[in-house]
Amino acid sequence: MTLCDIGNTHLHFYQEGRVWACAPQNLATHQEALQGEVFYISVNPHATNALLELCPSATNLAPKMQLQSKYEGLGVDRVAACLGLLGKSGVVVDAGSAITVDMMENGVHLGGVILPGFEAYRHAFKHISPALDVPLNLRVNVEALPNATTDALGYGALQSVLLTLKHLVGERKVYFTGGDGKFLANFFSNGIYDGLLVFNGMRATLGA
Amino acid sequence: MTLCDIGNTHLHFYQEGRVWACAPQNLATHQEALQGEVFYISVNPHATNALLELCPSATNLAPKMQLQSKYEGLGVDRVAACLGLLGKSGVVVDAGSAITVDMMENGVHLGGVILPGFEAYRHAFKHISPALDVPLNLRVNVEALPNATTDALGYGALQSVLLTLKHLVGERKVYFTGGDGKFLANFFSNGIYDGLLVFNGMRATLGA
Repeated sequence: MTLCDIGNTHLHFYQEGRVWACAPQNLATHQEALQGEVFYISVNPHATNALLELCPSATNLAPKMQLQSKYEGLGVDRVAACLGLLGKSGVVVDAGSAITVDMMENGVHLGGVILPGFEAYRHAFKHISPALDVPLNLRVNVEALPNATTDALGYGALQSVLLTLKHLVGERKVYFTGGDGKFLANFFSNGIYDGLLVFNGMRATLGA
Repeated sequence: MTLCDIGNTHLHFYQEGRVWACAPQNLATHQEALQGEVFYISVNPHATNALLELCPSATNLAPKMQLQSKYEGLGVDRVAACLGLLGKSGVVVDAGSAITVDMMENGVHLGGVILPGFEAYRHAFKHISPALDVPLNLRVNVEALPNATTDALGYGALQSVLLTLKHLVGERKVYFTGGDGKFLANFFSNGIYDGLLVFNGMRATLGA
């Protein structure tokens, strides 16, 4: 059995504990992983079509995902990550192209927030002015006041994300996943990194 | 005498206490304001050329702007806004296409931070996914947890800016300028909106 989480930029695969990512245009090189049963969730219709072309029998798990929530339009990847807590209470942070923050209490989703991911901050700055089209220094010391552009941009992106997360997390446990999840977890004494949160939610849905 | 602050998207003019903005492509319709002496600062070479074509005698004030600072590459508009404090201590927030935050103490610039402006947040979200290409609700209640996408995006943009500003401002006085300055000043009991900060810095440089 193969699980596939189709995100905005990549398809993420899970097979017997092994995980890997691939871009939609490179999907054909992963054809052997698509031989058996494939279950997917997707937030990207274009990449979904690419998967279904290679693997027409792949099953969309979204209709089977059940999360108690009043949130209108919650992305299926966020639903899966929240289900991945397996009933534990806490905050789920998926730090990818966007940074989504979802509050779970006793299996119920209480609401959530969306921040730009760090690459999106970079893109936003670049879009404002060529003078801001420089790398963000995300290793900036947020205890000091920046005195250079890369630090000023890095501070703006990192500190605005950290302060918002800390405000939302409070004393709760916080579970990080996604490409920048491990990096962000370092800033939280109550932070746990779990790269499999979305797949665990998919497996729980399948009763696997 | 006419002052002109050339920003990333617009040219802002000041003439005897009157201020107005115009896009570079509409500059010709403002030709009568460019008859007398014109002093400008600019962060946008393309728009500077547009001004100089209509008004070849316009003088760049940047070389005359003097601000004590260790910051490398501080934009001339930020220098002007800081000089606009006329020696007062406090935090200068210019909330336009970017939100710049600069710390002034006894006429000395101590450092600064750059955040995306709200339009840049909107652009960043749109760039991530078509599902996030919706208006941000900046009137969102930041005391409650969002349960809809426009609120989740609005909360992410507004709260991340507010918390970063509050962290940097502390108990200091904070002077807001720029298009979103008035809106942001409302969130600060120690906040003052001054739409003329940049022009006051230019006038101080001219000894006017």
